Amino acid sequence: MPHIELPAGLPGIRGPMAFSPETARPLNGLVNVLLRTNANRPESGLTEGERELIATYVSSLNDCFFCQTIHGAVASHHLGDEDWSLVQSVKCDPASAAISPKLKALLTIAGSVQQGGKSVTPEQVEAARAEGATDHDIHDTVLIAAAFCMFNRYVDGLATWAPEDASLYRYRAQKVAEYGYTHEDHYMPPAH
Amino acid sequence: MPHIELPAGLPGIRGPMAFSPETARPLNGLVNVLLRTNANRPESGLTEGERELIATYVSSLNDCFFCQTIHGAVASHHLGDEDWSLVQSVKCDPASAAISPKLKALLTIAGSVQQGGKSVTPEQVEAARAEGATDHDIHDTVLIAAAFCMFNRYVDGLATWAPEDASLYRYRAQKVAEYGYTHEDHYMPPAH
Repeated sequence: MPHIELPAGLPGIRGPMAFSPETARPLNGLVNVLLRTNANRPESGLTEGERELIATYVSSLNDCFFCQTIHGAVASHHLGDEDWSLVQSVKCDPASAAISPKLKALLTIAGSVQQGGKSVTPEQVEAARAEGATDHDIHDTVLIAAAFCMFNRYVDGLATWAPEDASLYRYRAQKVAEYGYTHEDHYMPPAH
Repeated sequence: MPHIELPAGLPGIRGPMAFSPETARPLNGLVNVLLRTNANRPESGLTEGERELIATYVSSLNDCFFCQTIHGAVASHHLGDEDWSLVQSVKCDPASAAISPKLKALLTIAGSVQQGGKSVTPEQVEAARAEGATDHDIHDTVLIAAAFCMFNRYVDGLATWAPEDASLYRYRAQKVAEYGYTHEDHYMPPAH
């Protein structure tokens, strides 16, 4: 049961976002810039799928079921990872996953950020540069990882409810890819 | 030295914010809603000084020098804590600080959020309610604590520079109280 009275039937972060639309606006604004490259990040060397993988990996380290499942589903959608096996391998062991050396090096940085900002080392940053990461890639990796240390705590710190049915996450992932992140209702399945 | 090339001379989060204005906008939007009650939080039972104390306490737990110093200075400004002794006592031992029992109970929740969302217990929430905390107070406490787990990691994960001169933080605190949070330059001392 959530720690505060939230609008019923809204999974994960959508409950607190409906409870507090004034904070939902900048929170959605932030993920729309950070996770959706097409409109907002012209200089980016990271695809939407890669950005969602960073979000998923950090959410997994923070043990946040809702965030790792929805962002894993969005990552899978972008990457054509139909059975979610790639996302699963990134969560379990990024070093052996079928992703680029650059993304592996950035995930190491993201993992350090999850532990605490001071855990990021110059050696980790150099290793990412050696694989082709730019200042913008490193900046966005650090901020995505930091932002999900916030989102995960917001979702779990209020003890929100999360559905277990994978098809709901697949449905939403498709709509997020189409419309972006918003606290509007139009992309939830009508039957739920 | 910062891990990426940031605009020179801008302390703490202001370097990354100038580097990435697209993300600075929603980040500033978030703290303006969360930390400044007057315009945006009419239902709030928490003053600006109390909100800044929560931000300062979490930043202290995360050992982020820049954030705990600037938000400590803003808290002191709002609370008339001229010598910063109240802020210092909250950082060292909130239980014995000269703050309300309600704020003490909310700081306990904030401390749990800093450790991880799942660390917040129903007993901690009940204790806050028993001291008069509303759902909005609990929501905002969780989100402020979560947000500073992001800001602290953003600031330290990029190894940003922070000045040690307390007068700079006092100067900025006064301007933040007056103008709010923004990545514009108008509230920095002209000489620095």
